[in-house]
Amino acid sequence: MAKIVLYMTVSLDGYVAGPDDSVDAPMGIGGFRLFNWLDRRNDPGPSGQVYAEAMATRAVIAGRRTYELAGRWQGDHHDGVPIFVLTHDVPDEAPPGSVRYVTDAAECAAQALLRAGELDEMELHVVPVLLGAGRRLFDHLPAEVVELEQVRQLTTPDVTHLHYRVHRP
Amino acid sequence: MAKIVLYMTVSLDGYVAGPDDSVDAPMGIGGFRLFNWLDRRNDPGPSGQVYAEAMATRAVIAGRRTYELAGRWQGDHHDGVPIFVLTHDVPDEAPPGSVRYVTDAAECAAQALLRAGELDEMELHVVPVLLGAGRRLFDHLPAEVVELEQVRQLTTPDVTHLHYRVHRP
Repeated sequence: MAKIVLYMTVSLDGYVAGPDDSVDAPMGIGGFRLFNWLDRRNDPGPSGQVYAEAMATRAVIAGRRTYELAGRWQGDHHDGVPIFVLTHDVPDEAPPGSVRYVTDAAECAAQALLRAGELDEMELHVVPVLLGAGRRLFDHLPAEVVELEQVRQLTTPDVTHLHYRVHRP
Repeated sequence: MAKIVLYMTVSLDGYVAGPDDSVDAPMGIGGFRLFNWLDRRNDPGPSGQVYAEAMATRAVIAGRRTYELAGRWQGDHHDGVPIFVLTHDVPDEAPPGSVRYVTDAAECAAQALLRAGELDEMELHVVPVLLGAGRRLFDHLPAEVVELEQVRQLTTPDVTHLHYRVHRP
């Protein structure tokens, strides 16, 4: 069975980017601090393990904002796997590489999938830093309790990887 | 050297209480879910260890809101240690038990201490649940990067205890 997993790097205070993120500043002010742990993505330790798992996924689902701010990954996120970009407005030009545009979901892929009950698991890379402001990972969710099951935690000095299974109602 | 440590239970999406918290509903709607892990506070496992540490503190600092919503702890948080309640307006009646009112800090103790650079450490009890709405632990902080050092993590099925040291600028 295919499953849908959210991989997201987040500051301890819940931000996935600093303030004022844009195409010119894709992680907002100070936000690239979150990606320091990726310096060890090819090491044999926990961060290497988790990164390899992310790179072994067979497809990518992303929101339009992330896609644009990431420079459309130049059409290839990894290994040429299909990239499904959720968007309200399909661009006029043909999508690059393995990208396909999908219009039947809301702006933010992760939120949309969580709200729609489609998200199976989450791997959060929690970085020991407070950003104080920026774009939050968990925002605009319905005020409903969603139970999770923590199935793994891997800790390094740079980052703690927490893996959760989402319980369906 | 005395140190100041924040102990706080928080949902994975960053809430310390559900929506509409009040004296009548001190944890807001659904918020008491966060305290399920305390069922094991007297067990020999990690949660018992962390709880015993919290109960070994020699003084308590709390914001006025928390204090009132907790029924003023009937004047004794644990073992008769001093309770410093940060408040703008000192109540007319004498404080109960070991409580002392302190007026020279802002509304929220933890935020105030963090902003003032007085907080030494944080022990966050992260509960595998999304509340979707409520009162956030990290809110209204200045948009400044605060580096932390993760010094311990203890995991149980109910809760993950993450301990951080706050780096001073």
